Amino acid sequence: MAVAFLIVSLIAGIISILMAIYFRSLVLKEDPGNEKMVTVAGYIEEGAKAYIKVQYMVLGIFVAVLFFVILFLLPSPLAPGERYAVWFNWEQALAYAIGSAGSMVAGYLGLYVGVKANTRAAQACTVGTKAGFDVAFFGGAVMGLAVVGVALIGVSVLYWIFETPLIILGFSFGASSIALFMKCGGGIFTKTADVGADLVGKAEYDLPEDDPRNPATIADNVGDNVGDIAGMGSDLFDSYVASIVAAMMIAASLALITNIDLTLDPVLRATLVVTPVVLCGVGLIASLIGIFIIKYREAENPGKALNNGTYYATLIFAGIAALFTWILTLDLNAEGTLLLWRIYFAVLIGLGSGIVMGFTSDYFTREDRKPTRNIANSAKEGHAVVILSGFSYGLLSVVPPALGIIVAMAVSYLLAGVFGVAMAAVGMLAIVGTIVSNDAFGPIVDNARAIAEQGELGDDVIRTADHLDSAGNTAKAITKGFAIGAANLTVFGLLFSFAEEVAKARGFRIEIDLLDIGVLIGAFIGVVVPALFSALLVLAVQKNAAKMVDEIRRQFEENPKILTGEEPADFKKTIDIATKGSLRELIVPSIISITVPIGVGIIFGVASLGAFLAGAILSGFVFAVFMSNSGGSWDNAKKWIEDGNLGGKGTEVHKASITGDTVGDPFKDTAGPSINTLLVVMSLTASMFMGLLLLFNSGAGLITF
Amino acid sequence: MAVAFLIVSLIAGIISILMAIYFRSLVLKEDPGNEKMVTVAGYIEEGAKAYIKVQYMVLGIFVAVLFFVILFLLPSPLAPGERYAVWFNWEQALAYAIGSAGSMVAGYLGLYVGVKANTRAAQACTVGTKAGFDVAFFGGAVMGLAVVGVALIGVSVLYWIFETPLIILGFSFGASSIALFMKCGGGIFTKTADVGADLVGKAEYDLPEDDPRNPATIADNVGDNVGDIAGMGSDLFDSYVASIVAAMMIAASLALITNIDLTLDPVLRATLVVTPVVLCGVGLIASLIGIFIIKYREAENPGKALNNGTYYATLIFAGIAALFTWILTLDLNAEGTLLLWRIYFAVLIGLGSGIVMGFTSDYFTREDRKPTRNIANSAKEGHAVVILSGFSYGLLSVVPPALGIIVAMAVSYLLAGVFGVAMAAVGMLAIVGTIVSNDAFGPIVDNARAIAEQGELGDDVIRTADHLDSAGNTAKAITKGFAIGAANLTVFGLLFSFAEEVAKARGFRIEIDLLDIGVLIGAFIGVVVPALFSALLVLAVQKNAAKMVDEIRRQFEENPKILTGEEPADFKKTIDIATKGSLRELIVPSIISITVPIGVGIIFGVASLGAFLAGAILSGFVFAVFMSNSGGSWDNAKKWIEDGNLGGKGTEVHKASITGDTVGDPFKDTAGPSINTLLVVMSLTASMFMGLLLLFNSGAGLITF
Repeated sequence: MAVAFLIVSLIAGIISILMAIYFRSLVLKEDPGNEKMVTVAGYIEEGAKAYIKVQYMVLGIFVAVLFFVILFLLPSPLAPGERYAVWFNWEQALAYAIGSAGSMVAGYLGLYVGVKANTRAAQACTVGTKAGFDVAFFGGAVMGLAVVGVALIGVSVLYWIFETPLIILGFSFGASSIALFMKCGGGIFTKTADVGADLVGKAEYDLPEDDPRNPATIADNVGDNVGDIAGMGSDLFDSYVASIVAAMMIAASLALITNIDLTLDPVLRATLVVTPVVLCGVGLIASLIGIFIIKYREAENPGKALNNGTYYATLIFAGIAALFTWILTLDLNAEGTLLLWRIYFAVLIGLGSGIVMGFTSDYFTREDRKPTRNIANSAKEGHAVVILSGFSYGLLSVVPPALGIIVAMAVSYLLAGVFGVAMAAVGMLAIVGTIVSNDAFGPIVDNARAIAEQGELGDDVIRTADHLDSAGNTAKAITKGFAIGAANLTVFGLLFSFAEEVAKARGFRIEIDLLDIGVLIGAFIGVVVPALFSALLVLAVQKNAAKMVDEIRRQFEENPKILTGEEPADFKKTIDIATKGSLRELIVPSIISITVPIGVGIIFGVASLGAFLAGAILSGFVFAVFMSNSGGSWDNAKKWIEDGNLGGKGTEVHKASITGDTVGDPFKDTAGPSINTLLVVMSLTASMFMGLLLLFNSGAGLITF
Repeated sequence: MAVAFLIVSLIAGIISILMAIYFRSLVLKEDPGNEKMVTVAGYIEEGAKAYIKVQYMVLGIFVAVLFFVILFLLPSPLAPGERYAVWFNWEQALAYAIGSAGSMVAGYLGLYVGVKANTRAAQACTVGTKAGFDVAFFGGAVMGLAVVGVALIGVSVLYWIFETPLIILGFSFGASSIALFMKCGGGIFTKTADVGADLVGKAEYDLPEDDPRNPATIADNVGDNVGDIAGMGSDLFDSYVASIVAAMMIAASLALITNIDLTLDPVLRATLVVTPVVLCGVGLIASLIGIFIIKYREAENPGKALNNGTYYATLIFAGIAALFTWILTLDLNAEGTLLLWRIYFAVLIGLGSGIVMGFTSDYFTREDRKPTRNIANSAKEGHAVVILSGFSYGLLSVVPPALGIIVAMAVSYLLAGVFGVAMAAVGMLAIVGTIVSNDAFGPIVDNARAIAEQGELGDDVIRTADHLDSAGNTAKAITKGFAIGAANLTVFGLLFSFAEEVAKARGFRIEIDLLDIGVLIGAFIGVVVPALFSALLVLAVQKNAAKMVDEIRRQFEENPKILTGEEPADFKKTIDIATKGSLRELIVPSIISITVPIGVGIIFGVASLGAFLAGAILSGFVFAVFMSNSGGSWDNAKKWIEDGNLGGKGTEVHKASITGDTVGDPFKDTAGPSINTLLVVMSLTASMFMGLLLLFNSGAGLITF
């Protein structure tokens, strides 16, 4: 009966895809601008497609390998009676393939529209702010709606067919493993280009930002698309699906929830299992309405317009979710009804804390607030002090969101146990359609600004584009806070669902007791992994950027006509360096994310694996917030100085602030946000391979203490 | 019976103090050099004493407050029958006062000799390397021997009188709370002066290192003494005592050890309780012999001489410890005998892994190894890239010592359970006399070099002093790795002893189950605290250094004769800024270290507090290793460039490497090493206040999930 409610999310998903197609057509019918702009946009599109082609080929092999691993190595969760006995696991393997494909399609769609919207947004800026805003906003919305639509349709249909979240787990694993590649690879790509372009172009040759003579300019623009649009899109796609799966799995396997015995109330259990999907459908509807409200209002202040969209979506969600919660309770007894309302509040608390987290990260990175202002002022003391200052504020900025997560976790747990925590994550991600749309807005206007510069549209238009760009940056800061919070609550949900699954499979509850030495070792390894992962990604950017620097210097030296603007720079070569470098450098991090959890599970057992996940989640949270916020702060401190403060451009203070910004680039756009995906992938890996792990010494591990 | 063995450590402690006095007299009878040198050394001594005077006055108030808290607020662990019933806890309060006083005396002794040895070592360098080495080495040995002597005498006497490690816990708490102030305060002081001196003197006015015209030069030299001698001394004093206490408490309260029921074998238990103290006495004897071997050998290669001292002490310790283990087994049955030999091997594993950790941190920070070489090369790409590179290698360097600790923990646990882990920590710290001596050698020769420069002893002498300085730096890198490893194993030991104490008091074993939401929240808070603590310390240095910069600029502007060398700079003013700043800035971090554990315990209960400690230990380990090693690497990368590589001094590459070094300064000398002390203080706070916490809702906390 409860399954019928899935029709809500299915319909919402389909509407969402249709809207994405409609917005895409709106964007495409806009004027792409003058010949120069079309040429530049063409280069960007070509570069992005070249990267995606190579990336997807590699991913194809990766997906194929994991497909067969799942098919032949992992016991099927569907085997009747003997849960982990049948070894031809086609259901999860299929779901995995669909999830991977869905993630790839969603990323491609967003990217495809992004590279079309940039030049059109630039051209629209000649008309005015509102016109430019609309084109960029619709372009971004295509990504947001595609992501959510594909996810919801996938989850609904798979649950309809297989009636167990364990198959959707495969879907989620597919989405996440792709997201890891997209996010890390895109992040390395974009910062290789950005850092390389800055180090030579700005610092050595005094070229302005986005100068077409700089051979890495186009690669930088390509990077915005592959890193910030496709990467962030697949990141949120993966958190979104994972949060739904975590909550569904807990609902399906939990014995007790706030003292209600679910084994005695199958109707309640069935309702709980579909609740996350239904509420996400509701969230999507709320996001769609929010998008339309933004569309039909004047956008004098584009940053405010984007934020208002988030508020509207939140309020509308709260209203419609109450309605649907009421509908869901119609089948239930008084006890179940009360529980559902408690869950409703857990969802609202999750959403509320997501917004708080977003605004915290906004506070810490905004140029008119104390942290960033102090960082900017510290640039007066030179390069080193600006680094120390940004580093410290970045670490300090971990405290407020940590408290936010702790409160959200505590309250949602008191409301509805571990299921409440998982539902808080679902709540945080319910309006992800709005969040992704706002986020994708950023790179589109960033590109638009570059194209306006290169298409010589004049200072007024560039100023309009700049205006949109700064709105995009604020939206991006908020999105990042949101994404980290959501991923964090989601992985807590996955940790609990992992424990519940183990409990169900073994017949007794596991304990992750830190006084057990194997568990403590698991936690130790878990805490170290995000640090190692961050180090590898930052090092990857640094190594590739050095290659990029050499290439740019080579081009300038071998062909002096590039600098005079008489001959175009060789863009393809720089794009090629970024593409190959990013793919090569993500091999080790991605191997770590899959093999370490499995290794810990096999050697030290499933309890140790649980502790590993907990340790990684906590330390990953610290690193993700620290790196994102310090990076954002440095960026905005530099921008504030470039606006003419403390002497403005060209001064020693400005140079010091550029050092901060450059250090922050891989922090905020490569390592920081990739950690979310790492955590989700490791958590899902644990759940996927749990059946296999339980075969080793009943999950106690090879070494027992 | 077993208590009689304490005579070993008591005698060793007394010999150690006598040797320290003897070495002090050796140093004092050396020639302090020419008038200029005596003047400069006089300034340094005066500054150091001024700092210590203010610092000890503040500490006096702090100690008095905590003394009364312990006396009237904490239940006495000695109350017969009702363990936590008597509230006039004079025994722990007295032990606390003695521990505090001991730590202060040891710090003062080391500092007193340090400021005498520097000018004498400089003068001895005119004779030759061996002469200079000897003076500095004996000066350092005073600190090393004083620390260990005071600690061992204190522990032995207190156990003799009270016959329970719970009183020694008070002694340890006293030592640690002083260490926190000495380490953080000294760390902030030294880097305020160092960074300030570099930023203005080197970067703006192109003054060489240690130039007497720079008003912050003397403050910088004072900082070496108060931060690196007194601070590191009290840090290792506190780890040393804490490791002994942790092992003793576990032995006293453990029910089962490797399936031997200790409640049935009081003789074995009594032996186990004194074993840590006895083996530390043995370690001290080994350290003394090692010191004499170093003394009577040619020191052509001073770095090698120091390292050889560590090897000798290790080998000698292994031998004598085997002898004493055999003696200790004479009273025991076969089962107990076997256990003691297993413990002997756990001790050796701890010691071995300490040495491995030291050499790992040496590898990551040595200029002739890949990481530092790569960091130096990355300076070619500018300020930002050298930061990114050092940051990444610093994080990567966490992995090998983490694996070292994990292996040591796993093997020592397999040998003798949680007592084995605690004894591995004792083993790691057994030869701490040698370690502290080697460490204190560094700042003495660093000062000597400065004094040789200011006393105009000529290039040859400066080169000799430089030679000793570089040996000192290597020794320091190794010591740091050692200190972090030892503190880490110690706090694991304290975590286990905390759990055992709770179990004994409540009558059942606690579980720190991460699936319990209160426990998970505790771990979350624990993981965040070291990040917050690091941020506060780095920010403190940055803020104070900015003030120092302003003061130096003011002096140069108001009195141009300072720069021409006609009039001396106002050293007192800069010392005053560093002193006041460091004391003001350590208020918040020290409040955090005491109140947060108590708060977590009261709100979420003792299990959550255990998880808090575990989280803090793991995340603290990551931050401590990362910050120490990245800082060390940047420092040596800069030195390598200054040796004439990549263009040498004055180039852009050199400037970028200075940025790295300046960022690394508060990492490696303020925040990184302070984390050890933070972890020990928080762990001891938990144990000290446990009796009180158990009164709240039987230790379940105010919020129960």
